[in-house]
Amino acid sequence: MTKTNRREFLRATSLALATAWAGGGAGLAQQAPVSAGALGPALVGDLVAANRILADQGVLDAFGHVSARHDKNPERFVLSRSLAPALVTATDLIEYDLDGRGVNVKGRSEYSERFIHAEIYRARRDVNAVVHAHALSLIPFGVSTTPLRAIYHMAGFIGEGVPIFDIRASSGMTDMLVKDSNKGRALAQVLGNKPAVLMRGHGVAVVGPALPFAVGRSIYLELNARIQAQAMALGGAVTYLDPEEARKIMESGENRSYERAWELWKRKVMTK
Amino acid sequence: MTKTNRREFLRATSLALATAWAGGGAGLAQQAPVSAGALGPALVGDLVAANRILADQGVLDAFGHVSARHDKNPERFVLSRSLAPALVTATDLIEYDLDGRGVNVKGRSEYSERFIHAEIYRARRDVNAVVHAHALSLIPFGVSTTPLRAIYHMAGFIGEGVPIFDIRASSGMTDMLVKDSNKGRALAQVLGNKPAVLMRGHGVAVVGPALPFAVGRSIYLELNARIQAQAMALGGAVTYLDPEEARKIMESGENRSYERAWELWKRKVMTK
Amino acid sequence: MTKTNRREFLRATSLALATAWAGGGAGLAQQAPVSAGALGPALVGDLVAANRILADQGVLDAFGHVSARHDKNPERFVLSRSLAPALVTATDLIEYDLDGRGVNVKGRSEYSERFIHAEIYRARRDVNAVVHAHALSLIPFGVSTTPLRAIYHMAGFIGEGVPIFDIRASSGMTDMLVKDSNKGRALAQVLGNKPAVLMRGHGVAVVGPALPFAVGRSIYLELNARIQAQAMALGGAVTYLDPEEARKIMESGENRSYERAWELWKRKVMTK
Amino acid sequence: MTKTNRREFLRATSLALATAWAGGGAGLAQQAPVSAGALGPALVGDLVAANRILADQGVLDAFGHVSARHDKNPERFVLSRSLAPALVTATDLIEYDLDGRGVNVKGRSEYSERFIHAEIYRARRDVNAVVHAHALSLIPFGVSTTPLRAIYHMAGFIGEGVPIFDIRASSGMTDMLVKDSNKGRALAQVLGNKPAVLMRGHGVAVVGPALPFAVGRSIYLELNARIQAQAMALGGAVTYLDPEEARKIMESGENRSYERAWELWKRKVMTK
Repeated sequence: MTKTNRREFLRATSLALATAWAGGGAGLAQQAPVSAGALGPALVGDLVAANRILADQGVLDAFGHVSARHDKNPERFVLSRSLAPALVTATDLIEYDLDGRGVNVKGRSEYSERFIHAEIYRARRDVNAVVHAHALSLIPFGVSTTPLRAIYHMAGFIGEGVPIFDIRASSGMTDMLVKDSNKGRALAQVLGNKPAVLMRGHGVAVVGPALPFAVGRSIYLELNARIQAQAMALGGAVTYLDPEEARKIMESGENRSYERAWELWKRKVMTK
Repeated sequence: MTKTNRREFLRATSLALATAWAGGGAGLAQQAPVSAGALGPALVGDLVAANRILADQGVLDAFGHVSARHDKNPERFVLSRSLAPALVTATDLIEYDLDGRGVNVKGRSEYSERFIHAEIYRARRDVNAVVHAHALSLIPFGVSTTPLRAIYHMAGFIGEGVPIFDIRASSGMTDMLVKDSNKGRALAQVLGNKPAVLMRGHGVAVVGPALPFAVGRSIYLELNARIQAQAMALGGAVTYLDPEEARKIMESGENRSYERAWELWKRKVMTK
Repeated sequence: MTKTNRREFLRATSLALATAWAGGGAGLAQQAPVSAGALGPALVGDLVAANRILADQGVLDAFGHVSARHDKNPERFVLSRSLAPALVTATDLIEYDLDGRGVNVKGRSEYSERFIHAEIYRARRDVNAVVHAHALSLIPFGVSTTPLRAIYHMAGFIGEGVPIFDIRASSGMTDMLVKDSNKGRALAQVLGNKPAVLMRGHGVAVVGPALPFAVGRSIYLELNARIQAQAMALGGAVTYLDPEEARKIMESGENRSYERAWELWKRKVMTK
Repeated sequence: MTKTNRREFLRATSLALATAWAGGGAGLAQQAPVSAGALGPALVGDLVAANRILADQGVLDAFGHVSARHDKNPERFVLSRSLAPALVTATDLIEYDLDGRGVNVKGRSEYSERFIHAEIYRARRDVNAVVHAHALSLIPFGVSTTPLRAIYHMAGFIGEGVPIFDIRASSGMTDMLVKDSNKGRALAQVLGNKPAVLMRGHGVAVVGPALPFAVGRSIYLELNARIQAQAMALGGAVTYLDPEEARKIMESGENRSYERAWELWKRKVMTK
């Protein structure tokens, strides 16, 4: 029995078997997990801001999403209901467990790809914020044999390269969406200990120890891609950051923790 | 007698012969067809929104247009008078029959290319919305031997490719405009059962089962073109969506029916 | 005695000889020419709008300018004082004769390249509006051996190609500016009977029978350049408009006289 | 003992030795230098405007900065505290000496790369304004063997080319930042008597005799880079400005001292 068939079977025949299913709770109607309590108000504010910033900066359009790990329980994370990021407010946030089951869905429509977030939070205890985006300039590097490389100091965080997740390798022919725990886990495995993973024919997932990092890395990863494409188009030989330069950039404080940028980005979206 | 000469002749000599003319009613002064009744108010709202959304998203500039099939009679469709899409309001809408004859023109100037819409509605009973655009990134693929291909999951709807209509093939040397029923029919034939057709040296026609689909496909077709051009420019080998991946994307619900995007796009243009 | 030396000599020795000088009155302190009378108010409004439209559409930045031939005397034209086009109002307009001498300068700073306009109006009696711009996408085609060609129906007006004026060919090493009648005349000669002339390492001059034409051609010439560059970058063979197609486009009414676009463009800048 | 080790040693052991240290006062806690007095109010206004203009024009994002030499003492310059340029107001300005020591820091966070400014002001007595930017279109030319060249008349100021500073050449593996006097001096040496220096994998420094020049050159350098990249992409041979043409442009008054543009740029940011 294939995994998909098995899931369909489970769905059709026995909800009681659901928790025993290794693939996680995707799509299975279960009792909602218990809440970890209210998210800290500063984190709520930052998560709402992160949604709007990424839309304003052109990293997210109507699709894609950004989440934060819950500040009271590392087994929970918070993500908007299915909504364009530019429109997200505090009341749209849903708390999830690491199987992608919502605490307070209340019948609202959900992002089908919340498993990207869930499985990365499960695999990476150092990560407290995740962005999933279809940023235009990054998709070419996810479908090309030409690798994305750190070309300037703002992209020191990718000094060790950016892996590419091809969903076809782990799941064969799909609708390209990471919409269950299995696919999320496969993605998290390719991400490894890196700050970002390109998703072939789809987009990117970017992570960080806090929202300003995940947001800032998303923005500068996108700029790095544009700069690299332009540099390659000039035809001459291109000098990339040396891995040691990238390391030193990270050691000396990655882009000053994006504080200066975060203040600007937040101001731009919050006074609109 | 050439077709053009024949039409000129008909125009000059005998309006009574008009309905007998095989080429349709283009340019012929005839009694206006009977109205199918008032368009549903929700559809009016969506059609006005579609005009403004496509302008706001950069798919349409001062030219190009978007129509909807009448919700009370499949032999009618609704299109603005000749006006830049960004300026269209409910009072600008004209009801047309499938020969491109207006029910309520009232002396207003008309889009000369309304036959694109008319003939597609005639040929494709599954289509309820049509966009005709000169989107910048799509025109290159209409004049190049390099085919436009689905490069990411948002463009699963073109998994079977996008045909190119070269008006020269069917009509010889023209002013490039699809301004009579014959030319519209030739275009509809090349479109076939596809969601879009590139028009060589001109633009594109995009169709859908409802306005959000035609609008959403126009927007993501344009993004796919930009991504593909950039991916090809990187010089490496490019992996496109597998036709089966595209099929699965369509089966699992094309871009969630564009609902999330439609809400955002509409909000953006309606609060301006 | 070279032309330049002769002019310097004239300037230094005898203002009385100025009107007898074949090269025009450029830079010569003379009595201001007599006014042709007040410009029609509609033309004033269109000229102010043209300035702002071209800035809003990204054809002009802080530099470049647009003029109209006087509606009461074909030997006069109207141009703003030296000012960024986005800021031009009716009170900034200066009336000039075809030697580039201002009727009502009143000590205001002038565009040094007004001779582009003057000499084109002198050479082309069919022209009633002139744009001089440094539009980004056009400059590459002015410095490259790759010719700009009509690639889509909106650019039918350049079906016979766009000549390139290299100021070096007629004037040797210069500061690149067309700032006297001689240089303006050389430019007008290269323009010939065409709607536009690229200026090597500088920009473009675009003309039309009325402001909406000169403005619309400037905008669509810029778009054509972007489309052509992108089409060429795709690597495949490119099909351009056939000269006969371009001719038919012009015969059937060039872009519907830009009326639909003019209404939109004007609305955009006048409600700001 | 390496330079870095020596500095660390100094810092740890003896502040009294600091002024004797040849590398300048970077990072050393010292008594603040004496102020040169209040900056002229017009210069304050121009410096605030310059910050906002460069952000508005896309030359600076959240990072990068612009400074002006003090109008009362050439040994001092003025720069914002660590803040995104778009947000800078008069109260954010800090006065610095040429060792990068602030007169009135008052505990505020500082730009770590103020030494770019300090050392250029020390080396170039003709310079009264300095911009440091990460403009997207310029970074490719800083990492490529393809040189940036003057391609149109607005870029006459780089007729003699733009040198590239590779921090690796003078300082080996670093975090890429010019954050002490030694690195600033190395940069100033590569800049030489030129108006701009590209910084490999980082950005650019642009200088001028006054703020409108440094700002205007930054903007047009960026445009020149875009035009050159596009011209090269057309595949044909490219004609650049002849050095003599560039010289004549400078002699006849570089871009009319950017007065017309400055007025526009300032208006745009000050009415926001």
